[in-house]
Amino acid sequence: MNDLLLRAARGEKTERSPVWVMRQAGRILPEYRAIRKSISGFKELVETPELAAEVTIQPVDILGVDAAIIFSDILVIPEAMGLPYQMEEGRGPWFPKVIKTESDINALHVAEGSELQYVYDAILLTRKGLNGRVPVIGFAGAPFTIFCYMIEGRGSKTFSEARKWLHANPEASHNLLEKITQSTINYLKLQVEAGVSIYQVFDSWAGVLSAELYKEYCMPYLNRIAQEVSQVPSIVFAKGAHFAMSDLLSSNFNAVGLDWTLNPADLAHIGSKKTLQGNMDPTVLYADDQYVVQKTKEMLTSFSGIPHIANLGHGVYPDTDWKKVKLFIDTIKAN
Amino acid sequence: MNDLLLRAARGEKTERSPVWVMRQAGRILPEYRAIRKSISGFKELVETPELAAEVTIQPVDILGVDAAIIFSDILVIPEAMGLPYQMEEGRGPWFPKVIKTESDINALHVAEGSELQYVYDAILLTRKGLNGRVPVIGFAGAPFTIFCYMIEGRGSKTFSEARKWLHANPEASHNLLEKITQSTINYLKLQVEAGVSIYQVFDSWAGVLSAELYKEYCMPYLNRIAQEVSQVPSIVFAKGAHFAMSDLLSSNFNAVGLDWTLNPADLAHIGSKKTLQGNMDPTVLYADDQYVVQKTKEMLTSFSGIPHIANLGHGVYPDTDWKKVKLFIDTIKAN
Repeated sequence: MNDLLLRAARGEKTERSPVWVMRQAGRILPEYRAIRKSISGFKELVETPELAAEVTIQPVDILGVDAAIIFSDILVIPEAMGLPYQMEEGRGPWFPKVIKTESDINALHVAEGSELQYVYDAILLTRKGLNGRVPVIGFAGAPFTIFCYMIEGRGSKTFSEARKWLHANPEASHNLLEKITQSTINYLKLQVEAGVSIYQVFDSWAGVLSAELYKEYCMPYLNRIAQEVSQVPSIVFAKGAHFAMSDLLSSNFNAVGLDWTLNPADLAHIGSKKTLQGNMDPTVLYADDQYVVQKTKEMLTSFSGIPHIANLGHGVYPDTDWKKVKLFIDTIKAN
Repeated sequence: MNDLLLRAARGEKTERSPVWVMRQAGRILPEYRAIRKSISGFKELVETPELAAEVTIQPVDILGVDAAIIFSDILVIPEAMGLPYQMEEGRGPWFPKVIKTESDINALHVAEGSELQYVYDAILLTRKGLNGRVPVIGFAGAPFTIFCYMIEGRGSKTFSEARKWLHANPEASHNLLEKITQSTINYLKLQVEAGVSIYQVFDSWAGVLSAELYKEYCMPYLNRIAQEVSQVPSIVFAKGAHFAMSDLLSSNFNAVGLDWTLNPADLAHIGSKKTLQGNMDPTVLYADDQYVVQKTKEMLTSFSGIPHIANLGHGVYPDTDWKKVKLFIDTIKAN
């Protein structure tokens, strides 16, 4: 098996940076769109193991990435806890029922993980389809990001409702984060049992907090996850969390993802030896080939001397030409 | 006149931090909502000097802030350049016509500033109404933020279309930013003529860039504005621009606003002597009184020894109880 990603995540020296792309399985690929068109909706894809496995493998075949990331959604966890989500075409996910009171929190149960058998089935089918070519990456949302969705019911620029809970109901907030954390641990353990070789925790809305709030409401839960699910290497990607980088770099995760607003040089003073992942601006891929190659090389140079997993600094945007993504990947592989 | 704000902005030692609040004139005040209800829409309020002046003065009377900020919108500039905006209840501003091609940019004209007479009239009426009690703050959007709106047509989480232009059409991007900058300079000069004593430039979408892009596409234009409109002190607030703080702190602006994700201590290594503005998390105002007072004092302490203008780290959220905002202000004034 191509184990570049696993070795890099563990901090070993690798002959080149392994590469995968956040949202590599998705709308950038015509083959994905063809499958998506043939079914009723996004959730059918997530919940049908054969289809989820097929789109998970597509970028390995088409783009030549060094790992497959299981096709799923971070919102399966709130659903398993009692808050089902819906996916609205063009507007993203939303929750018909949200957390409004403390008794809503008390009514939620901790997910055992067994509710999400379709994910483990998809992992098993993916492994079969890959036949050992590349490792499978598992994933989950970070507790705070799931917390945001459970309270706001959908995406938001400020997540002011969720932040309000942290200041105005600290105890209830911790209770909810605790339940999400335990659910996430159960879920990731079963992903590992099904055969993921590494996993990433996505803290997509981290950027609306501050150093102080991140220390109190995020780090303890993140660290618990990484500690309790330590059978395989782990990556944490906290988008926008520039204020928490030293905490993340001394966390229990093996690797830390950087969004495109950060420069590895700015983190040098922290003196971490952890593997870094990232972080090219995905909008670079809208430019011409020469520019894409140049910026990809500049990105690689910016990580030189650091154990590195190449990636974009954000999920690839759906209207990106997949050939540019392939050029990004090929440039990294040729380096 | 209470000139605390002007003295603090110039870096002078003041007996206490002056305080104003971003979006202080607006939906938090019942008196504002009463006026807003009596008219057809947001734009009527912006374009009717008597009403704009009235809501500008409200927070001086009700909240006791140390300055009035003229009630207007940053989108009057694209409108004056040839792209009218509309304000949709609950969904924010949007542009029926956006920039799609280079010829769309060529078709835009530089605003002379005279298109926006209603703003200067509102400033004159505000000064009359204030009768010298506190200074009036003028404002404009930063060129990159206006650029984002002109290309995307509305708010966005990623502004990937706007960022695409920077990478894929650098020359055209500079042409558009140049036109916006010149329009903004003309506009701010006329605000100063009408009597604003200080102004703030809002770079609301700065956070989607990076150090490199900010240096190339933002700083030169921001610096030109501050240099050409230097008759009164100036503040720049680039939300999310953690990567550009050293550039902003060595810019031509007198003061630099911090969003709530930044900690003044983290900027100490830059060694700037500039006035800082900010930066309490606006969601603190959802908590109980004791917590609001405690966090306000902690915020003041975090700026001790630095010339400081007290403010929130983001515009106050519309559903905030105005009494909490007053408590924030009173706590600062009593300190």
